[in-house]
Amino acid sequence: MSKTVFVLNGPNLNMLGKREPGIYGGSTLKDIESDCIAAGRELGFEVDFRQSNHEGVLVDWIHEAGDKAVVGIAINAGAYTHTSIALHDAIRAISVPVVELHISNVHAREEFRHHSMIAPAVKGVICGFGTASYVLALHALKSITA
Amino acid sequence: MSKTVFVLNGPNLNMLGKREPGIYGGSTLKDIESDCIAAGRELGFEVDFRQSNHEGVLVDWIHEAGDKAVVGIAINAGAYTHTSIALHDAIRAISVPVVELHISNVHAREEFRHHSMIAPAVKGVICGFGTASYVLALHALKSITA
Amino acid sequence: MSKTVFVLNGPNLNMLGKREPGIYGGSTLKDIESDCIAAGRELGFEVDFRQSNHEGVLVDWIHEAGDKAVVGIAINAGAYTHTSIALHDAIRAISVPVVELHISNVHAREEFRHHSMIAPAVKGVICGFGTASYVLALHALKSITA
Amino acid sequence: MSKTVFVLNGPNLNMLGKREPGIYGGSTLKDIESDCIAAGRELGFEVDFRQSNHEGVLVDWIHEAGDKAVVGIAINAGAYTHTSIALHDAIRAISVPVVELHISNVHAREEFRHHSMIAPAVKGVICGFGTASYVLALHALKSITA
Amino acid sequence: MSKTVFVLNGPNLNMLGKREPGIYGGSTLKDIESDCIAAGRELGFEVDFRQSNHEGVLVDWIHEAGDKAVVGIAINAGAYTHTSIALHDAIRAISVPVVELHISNVHAREEFRHHSMIAPAVKGVICGFGTASYVLALHALKSITA
Amino acid sequence: MSKTVFVLNGPNLNMLGKREPGIYGGSTLKDIESDCIAAGRELGFEVDFRQSNHEGVLVDWIHEAGDKAVVGIAINAGAYTHTSIALHDAIRAISVPVVELHISNVHAREEFRHHSMIAPAVKGVICGFGTASYVLALHALKSITA
Amino acid sequence: MSKTVFVLNGPNLNMLGKREPGIYGGSTLKDIESDCIAAGRELGFEVDFRQSNHEGVLVDWIHEAGDKAVVGIAINAGAYTHTSIALHDAIRAISVPVVELHISNVHAREEFRHHSMIAPAVKGVICGFGTASYVLALHALKSITA
Amino acid sequence: MSKTVFVLNGPNLNMLGKREPGIYGGSTLKDIESDCIAAGRELGFEVDFRQSNHEGVLVDWIHEAGDKAVVGIAINAGAYTHTSIALHDAIRAISVPVVELHISNVHAREEFRHHSMIAPAVKGVICGFGTASYVLALHALKSITA
Amino acid sequence: MSKTVFVLNGPNLNMLGKREPGIYGGSTLKDIESDCIAAGRELGFEVDFRQSNHEGVLVDWIHEAGDKAVVGIAINAGAYTHTSIALHDAIRAISVPVVELHISNVHAREEFRHHSMIAPAVKGVICGFGTASYVLALHALKSITA
Amino acid sequence: MSKTVFVLNGPNLNMLGKREPGIYGGSTLKDIESDCIAAGRELGFEVDFRQSNHEGVLVDWIHEAGDKAVVGIAINAGAYTHTSIALHDAIRAISVPVVELHISNVHAREEFRHHSMIAPAVKGVICGFGTASYVLALHALKSITA
Amino acid sequence: MSKTVFVLNGPNLNMLGKREPGIYGGSTLKDIESDCIAAGRELGFEVDFRQSNHEGVLVDWIHEAGDKAVVGIAINAGAYTHTSIALHDAIRAISVPVVELHISNVHAREEFRHHSMIAPAVKGVICGFGTASYVLALHALKSITA
Amino acid sequence: MSKTVFVLNGPNLNMLGKREPGIYGGSTLKDIESDCIAAGRELGFEVDFRQSNHEGVLVDWIHEAGDKAVVGIAINAGAYTHTSIALHDAIRAISVPVVELHISNVHAREEFRHHSMIAPAVKGVICGFGTASYVLALHALKSITA
Repeated sequence: MSKTVFVLNGPNLNMLGKREPGIYGGSTLKDIESDCIAAGRELGFEVDFRQSNHEGVLVDWIHEAGDKAVVGIAINAGAYTHTSIALHDAIRAISVPVVELHISNVHAREEFRHHSMIAPAVKGVICGFGTASYVLALHALKSITA
Repeated sequence: MSKTVFVLNGPNLNMLGKREPGIYGGSTLKDIESDCIAAGRELGFEVDFRQSNHEGVLVDWIHEAGDKAVVGIAINAGAYTHTSIALHDAIRAISVPVVELHISNVHAREEFRHHSMIAPAVKGVICGFGTASYVLALHALKSITA
Repeated sequence: MSKTVFVLNGPNLNMLGKREPGIYGGSTLKDIESDCIAAGRELGFEVDFRQSNHEGVLVDWIHEAGDKAVVGIAINAGAYTHTSIALHDAIRAISVPVVELHISNVHAREEFRHHSMIAPAVKGVICGFGTASYVLALHALKSITA
Repeated sequence: MSKTVFVLNGPNLNMLGKREPGIYGGSTLKDIESDCIAAGRELGFEVDFRQSNHEGVLVDWIHEAGDKAVVGIAINAGAYTHTSIALHDAIRAISVPVVELHISNVHAREEFRHHSMIAPAVKGVICGFGTASYVLALHALKSITA
Repeated sequence: MSKTVFVLNGPNLNMLGKREPGIYGGSTLKDIESDCIAAGRELGFEVDFRQSNHEGVLVDWIHEAGDKAVVGIAINAGAYTHTSIALHDAIRAISVPVVELHISNVHAREEFRHHSMIAPAVKGVICGFGTASYVLALHALKSITA
Repeated sequence: MSKTVFVLNGPNLNMLGKREPGIYGGSTLKDIESDCIAAGRELGFEVDFRQSNHEGVLVDWIHEAGDKAVVGIAINAGAYTHTSIALHDAIRAISVPVVELHISNVHAREEFRHHSMIAPAVKGVICGFGTASYVLALHALKSITA
Repeated sequence: MSKTVFVLNGPNLNMLGKREPGIYGGSTLKDIESDCIAAGRELGFEVDFRQSNHEGVLVDWIHEAGDKAVVGIAINAGAYTHTSIALHDAIRAISVPVVELHISNVHAREEFRHHSMIAPAVKGVICGFGTASYVLALHALKSITA
Repeated sequence: MSKTVFVLNGPNLNMLGKREPGIYGGSTLKDIESDCIAAGRELGFEVDFRQSNHEGVLVDWIHEAGDKAVVGIAINAGAYTHTSIALHDAIRAISVPVVELHISNVHAREEFRHHSMIAPAVKGVICGFGTASYVLALHALKSITA
Repeated sequence: MSKTVFVLNGPNLNMLGKREPGIYGGSTLKDIESDCIAAGRELGFEVDFRQSNHEGVLVDWIHEAGDKAVVGIAINAGAYTHTSIALHDAIRAISVPVVELHISNVHAREEFRHHSMIAPAVKGVICGFGTASYVLALHALKSITA
Repeated sequence: MSKTVFVLNGPNLNMLGKREPGIYGGSTLKDIESDCIAAGRELGFEVDFRQSNHEGVLVDWIHEAGDKAVVGIAINAGAYTHTSIALHDAIRAISVPVVELHISNVHAREEFRHHSMIAPAVKGVICGFGTASYVLALHALKSITA
Repeated sequence: MSKTVFVLNGPNLNMLGKREPGIYGGSTLKDIESDCIAAGRELGFEVDFRQSNHEGVLVDWIHEAGDKAVVGIAINAGAYTHTSIALHDAIRAISVPVVELHISNVHAREEFRHHSMIAPAVKGVICGFGTASYVLALHALKSITA
Repeated sequence: MSKTVFVLNGPNLNMLGKREPGIYGGSTLKDIESDCIAAGRELGFEVDFRQSNHEGVLVDWIHEAGDKAVVGIAINAGAYTHTSIALHDAIRAISVPVVELHISNVHAREEFRHHSMIAPAVKGVICGFGTASYVLALHALKSITA
């Protein structure tokens, strides 16, 4: 199982494509999954791509990643990024490296999106490159786990 | 389906009637549902009335409302009102008009209830009129969707 | 005199229609007065509709409402909403129920419009429904004084 | 049913033993459950021990405790301690006494763990005594319900 | 004219007796005026006692006191105490000594009543002694102008 | 009427010359009016120079300026500069360009004078040049309306 | 013992006359004691006048006043005014009325002197009238215990 | 000497029973001392029970505990809990384990009682269980020194 | 040398015309220099016009102005306005009068542009009049040095 | 010139390898330059790699990049990241896309490194992947300019 | 008596050597006293070296220094440095120059040690040089009293 | 080269003697250099004394000191003390001990001078002793490098 990478998506990301395309672009989450699988293949990763609107489910999945000892996690925690100490603790509780990513440049948006509650617990952060942020996050995981 | 209105209730509202009657009054959520259905009938709305203690479920329901293109949503998000960026984003992600409502006058209570995280994303806010806030919210939806 | 309702308007509301129609719509205060009188007739209220740019005059009128023991007050205190402790105290000083209302959704505007100094003193708040906020406020007064 | 005590555990506590043993020690949640059952037997309590990573589930369980009129609740709400108004309200909504507990001394850790959102709603708080905090919480419940 | 003292009252003080007797007592402003006149007679002051709900009128009266070179001013600025830079400047603009007074102990009430905008400009402050605060303010004026 | 310029003065400016000459200089408001009329003549403006201690009157005058479509307004709002959202809204409600001015350098004085509530609504700000600030404000109006 | 009044003085007040006469005047604490005894005689009070630089001693004395059921306490707590929760609690712990007083106008001095930790626990506050503040405090005690 | 435990009490705790029984209950400090001695006997501790209103004395006693190498300290520092860095440092300066305790639930009271200055230096905290907090603190000492 | 005026420009002002014309207009710094030279000729000033992106160079130039005893300085410190204590101190270190100027109305832009670090050290401030702010600054220098 | 990419390094990055290897790793800036040139060759970029300790020089280079219309800029602004409005404005002033990068995870370090002054002006941000952050930044530039 | 210098030590400094040697080093207060006496001899000072855990005693000693007109005071106020307005006032109340000193670099420790309440009242501050800070403080006193 | 000490001076210190002598005294930087060279000779240090108004140059010099492995650095960073993270990082990047010094007592001046950005990175701080602060800093370097 050692080549698996989890790509986890938080609340409202299932609405991509429909939701505020001016900010998030026109791609759907399905499109991004395809991009991730393709990029994963190139980097030698098997991508397990998931989405949930439930904070608790995201916590469960991070634990699962720890239990399965996957190679790494790329997480776009959406709104929970800014408030979830539970996710922060979940990431701290496992020894798998985690990359935080965002589609938009959160620092150029509302004040309440400037602070990330999970950033101090992750390995690194990537934001602002549209859906390309996902592929860059996989590259980042490659470089820190190589 | 175009005549449906969602009336969504957040955490602890299932306890209405039992919970702090000095603040919330003696009506149960069942009573309110009846009031809403009656008022909806008068206004030409079919009311779909729900309650959940789970933030993620409320997010799911808002998406469902967007997918079904309902006429509007009246939401009493309870405690999540004050902290949930996920609900804020869910409301932004759909094109259905949303009315925020509260039974009590939140501004006359604890400091942490004075700020609403979802208010900037909704059409308007109604609070403080006891269970009548629900019926007023339906009237408000009528006036903005007429 | 027991059927009278005061509808009080604060600073700059006399400019409605001319002032930033993108935010406040194209109706004039005269139009709103007509709407209120019509709605009042339906609800059994005699509407006394006034506007002043002077904080002190608004305080005087609230006292007058208390002295005349009117049924209720609907007040759009405009800019004084956010800073006037005098209005807060005036509302506290009478036993007439007061509804605070706003045409725009103040929570979706500048930071300094998010806090209401009078909200802790009123019965309830209605905002964001355009000029319909006035009629909803009258309905709210009806429901709490019935 | 009057001798039951709920011992509720929030997010990431299922990782105990694996997670940061420097802070939380080497015991697993299973070990703690045994300690609680043993201590409960001594104190005349039947311990119902549960864990969930879902805020909504914790809210549901608190309601269940209220409906079953259990003797008391000892809760280690983990990360939700610091942010959950929903848990605060759930505790307020029932008449069962609640004891908040923490394994570590939260005041000696990161700034964001210093404030408890639920503390104002509980009877009392115990923190910093490792897994012994659980047994002390049961003793505390005994002393306040005797 | 040199024996005149102005006793100025700000917004809502005309409601004394009717307004929140738990905080302000049962005396009316008329009663206080009588007390002040009686105390003034004893102290050799001619008391000019006024009330207005208008910030601008209070500013005008302070200027008038400066122009008439009265002995002193005792002012209960009510709600304007906490926000009015205009009153602060008016007091600074004259050379007449001013005593700030309050009926209630403002420090034991809402947060927003703890700060006085005019206190840095006055000679001294007296608060919390009920309507006796007025008579004490006249004594204070006597002691600093003797 | 298109050559008229309003020069509006807020609270306490009628005390100029008498009031704290160390900060405001020895000129009276009458002197400044003469300077403005002279400068206006040179620039082709007819100067309408007014002063009031009442926030509401200043709001009324700004509306009047909008109704008369004057060329511009130069306003020294005195203490209301720092607190008046009503003036901010009044300026926003008209299409006449407004210049904010101050005699003293407000940034070199008390903290509470550092922030201007009206500055975001005006065209530009001039402060610190003594009574010459008025003439500079007229020049500024000339340059932006030429 | 029922006619005794405690006049308590906190840290550095023994330095009066020597210490910063520009702020505190030239009188010594001995002079003030004489004034208080004289005023007390007039008001029917027996004045017990004390000073200590020790927070704990001031707490002890307040308890002593409670135990002896004196008529009242006038306290100039000096620097401890701004930080001592212990004094706040001591005052709360007894049923003797307490008047807080200050020689200087603390609101016109450094920021850290603007807030009083004991003010919410006392009956009323008097400040800024030089050593006359003491005599006014005795008058205040008279008026509230008469 | 190795079986001694210090139970230290800070300011105003000598007033227990007389002081605000609504918050602190009707027991006196003498009663609590008896409870502690009894509980100590059961746990194998010799209890040395003391109270002082002086911050310095509390610091001295903590040093004494360190010098005598007692088994542990249970401290109810009262008001000094919230402000005393000296107590924080004293606790840090010794190697004896310290338990902080409070009779009332400090988190449910005034804002200024929510933060403990000594909590980061102690082993753990117990609050809100009335006088039972003392006995629980002894149990806690037992569990961490066993 | 006594007729020289320094017009100093800070970081990014060399980009004028290319940079965000919506905010700064289409004029280049060269155009402004010409305007200043022309206006200077009229006012009897010889304009020495400079630009640098280096905070240290701006400090050097202010010292140079002090050493050469020029008539005055008009400075548009750009981004350094909001953060540079070094410029504040440099202005304080010389006896030449300084006018701070800005092309845009900084108070109507991002929060971090609302505060000027140098404003307390200058004579006065002019902002918001486009490139005309430069000419107005020269007029201001004339009026305060005449 | 259209294939050039600027890689700009701010203060203290010349010390890499010598400076705090626990945080920054053992690579020197020379090593990173080689990595960037190699990665650039792969991506079709000609890398122009520079370092300066001077804020003004970094501003100059960003302008130069704008004038030369390079493909993109990758910038590790070091300490200036957190304070430089000048860099923010420089980035805004050109139309070249800019990627902000950091070697360490700034969110896991001191509070003052959590906020980036330039982030709102850039396209996206990458941090925490050691020297691999540079190569990822080049990949990011590729993806957004492709 | 004119050659005496007071070296005053605040709370917990009697624990030096035992207390956290990683921060404070292994010297005892006795060692430091010897160093001070030796350095004093060299500088022509007679050193009076004292320590107390009581804020009030430190205040008393500062008054004593004023009364005896000693040459100067070197004070390591320990924890009281950060909170004691009483010490601030005591220093202000005498005309003897005072040097504040610390063994550790307080700015490199916890946030609550960064601010000194007494620093604005002293002549100068020395911190961070271990026990050498004492001797440097004596040198500093020499240089400012020579 | 091991006996060299750098004495570095930041912005505006070249103006000493001319600049605000009330705060900084009448000595010039040349005078201070002579004092330092003389004191250095006594202590066995060769003093390399420099001044720059450029933050970047100060960073360069600190690196140079690290490369040359000088005995120590005494730095008066002037205004950059309060804002420069670049200087903080430069000091962290070398293994040479650094002493921060100030001529004036920065804690007795404007609020913005109370916080030092570099203090957490240096060995110790000396301020307030006029130009003698420089010689004391050299003594401090001696004591920590002996």
